[in-house]
Amino acid sequence: MVEVVNGDNTTTVGIVGLGLIGGSLARRLTGRACRVLAWNHNPRPYESAEQAGITCMPTLEALAQASPDIIVLCNPLKAMPDILQHLSTVINRNTTTLTDVGSVKGMVRDQVKTAGLVDCYVGAHPMAGNELSGWTAADPELYDNALWALTVDENTEYQRFLAVARMIVDCVGNRIIVLDDATHDRAAALISHMPHAISTAMINELVDAPQRNVAAALAAGSWRDMTRVALTDPNRTRAMIEEDSANVEALLRNMAARLTAVADMLHLQGGAANDDVSREWLEFFSHGDPFRAYKHGACAPALQQSQESQQSNRFAENNHILHIPETDWQYALLQSALRGEHVMAIRGDREFEVRIKSAL
Amino acid sequence: MVEVVNGDNTTTVGIVGLGLIGGSLARRLTGRACRVLAWNHNPRPYESAEQAGITCMPTLEALAQASPDIIVLCNPLKAMPDILQHLSTVINRNTTTLTDVGSVKGMVRDQVKTAGLVDCYVGAHPMAGNELSGWTAADPELYDNALWALTVDENTEYQRFLAVARMIVDCVGNRIIVLDDATHDRAAALISHMPHAISTAMINELVDAPQRNVAAALAAGSWRDMTRVALTDPNRTRAMIEEDSANVEALLRNMAARLTAVADMLHLQGGAANDDVSREWLEFFSHGDPFRAYKHGACAPALQQSQESQQSNRFAENNHILHIPETDWQYALLQSALRGEHVMAIRGDREFEVRIKSAL
Repeated sequence: MVEVVNGDNTTTVGIVGLGLIGGSLARRLTGRACRVLAWNHNPRPYESAEQAGITCMPTLEALAQASPDIIVLCNPLKAMPDILQHLSTVINRNTTTLTDVGSVKGMVRDQVKTAGLVDCYVGAHPMAGNELSGWTAADPELYDNALWALTVDENTEYQRFLAVARMIVDCVGNRIIVLDDATHDRAAALISHMPHAISTAMINELVDAPQRNVAAALAAGSWRDMTRVALTDPNRTRAMIEEDSANVEALLRNMAARLTAVADMLHLQGGAANDDVSREWLEFFSHGDPFRAYKHGACAPALQQSQESQQSNRFAENNHILHIPETDWQYALLQSALRGEHVMAIRGDREFEVRIKSAL
Repeated sequence: MVEVVNGDNTTTVGIVGLGLIGGSLARRLTGRACRVLAWNHNPRPYESAEQAGITCMPTLEALAQASPDIIVLCNPLKAMPDILQHLSTVINRNTTTLTDVGSVKGMVRDQVKTAGLVDCYVGAHPMAGNELSGWTAADPELYDNALWALTVDENTEYQRFLAVARMIVDCVGNRIIVLDDATHDRAAALISHMPHAISTAMINELVDAPQRNVAAALAAGSWRDMTRVALTDPNRTRAMIEEDSANVEALLRNMAARLTAVADMLHLQGGAANDDVSREWLEFFSHGDPFRAYKHGACAPALQQSQESQQSNRFAENNHILHIPETDWQYALLQSALRGEHVMAIRGDREFEVRIKSAL
């Protein structure tokens, strides 16, 4: 069990890594009744960070030995094994809960286990970011209206989960959904890692086409939109896909099967002259209608309401209370997330205010 | 041979269909030393069009019987067979050249052949448009800096091709590339029709995922960009794919093979822990570098120069002269387009000013 050592209610948060995500989080938390400590692999951001009210620590040891309630690992995933190894020798496991902001959760938990730190770990992944990087781009508004995925497993200690959840909901002012690592990583593969691979394959197809210069001349909005992510650093894309390898593999096989099915239908029924199109062919074009409806209508007004509700912090009409059971609380929260509910507020240790926000 | 019947140098252009594309073209041409006649399937735009200097005709017959130098079919592709059939009984084949703005060229030429009008036909496809439609959205600036693909075959009469090319380059003030139908339709499938099918398959994959509501919650920029075209009218997407059926089929099979190859490589080498990645795996991510280089650097300054050159209509430094041979002129122009050259100006009947604009 995690001990409560602070005499007051102020949460002390230690941020590892003052890049775009960590720096923005540190700046956001200083404005919101948190004590913020930080360590960065170089001291370049320290003068500016101190001016923003962040206490900068000379070493990772010093940060750990200050026994913050929560340490948030905002370092690059590549540095994760080394930092975890280092932390394992200096962290105060009784007082400090460890979390991170990595974009894959299964791999990070494995690394946390390897470092022997899993007992004090809760996974986290904020849906925040932009095309910039580094402390100079850090901006507390990066987290405006953001959603975080928290990941837990059957051994996660509820009080540690609650401490991280409260930091995000009460201090950062964001929504959360609670998942297992596998659900998170499958969903992230679906909406990000697999699309990056497809976009990359599309520009490869263009480069190999004998009429590539003509195609480039004719390219307009659909090509521009669908290949934009292939223009970003291909090494970053490669790392992202490698980190979520098994999920991306499965999704690419699904997608290959879908594209082959479309090709087969086109082959069978021929071109536009044929009016005798199959039910299956029409179904290919209408199957995504629930997502179209979600994008066109449902989500926009709900988002607006949520902002109002977050600002006033009052119980909004569309919210309802989710009671968190003592046993299998992970399952109850996962089921809530799968229904499209987001945690909007925490009313008590076992009483979460949720709202349906992303249901197709 | 087409007869020259106008006493002056003013070109008379007959526009069929005053929607977004036809209406914008009609308004653009009235400002640029052209006489513009128009017919629309209903007279709703006529009062406003007449005020814009367009002579509106009561019937398609009346338009055809006025013997314009060029008739541009800007009607929907669905109406094409009927309109061609109707035109074939009233058009003055000796004086009028027929063209269109359809987004597929092979199918339209087949329909033109069926109507017995192929002797006076030159295909055209302007890269212009937006998300609006109808006369009320018509705007001459829609054609600012636009590129047109003109399509010809071995039987196309050079003087008819030249008449359409001069209308676009001299009157509309746009660039052209000259292609055969197959090259056009393959390139269009690559940069538009195939991407629409993939985007549709992606939202279908999401809808079928048990964790779809979680995925929708986590979705950010890459998902938004790559599924935007799947949100447009799926019936329009279906028609577009059916009209270019064989090319889309082949490209989807290529893409399925590319995605399967990526899945196989992921399967073989496992996740990020494995440093022993294959040359083929690295190649997947670097293969599109020529397109990345084209997008990041080469095209932006060239485009800017082109605008300057179009405005001043002077011979720009990067232009060169393409001499059009008497025989196999179609081949010479196709090869120029495949090199990434665009026709910037027409200096004489057999002397085109071209510039490399879209070379990877």
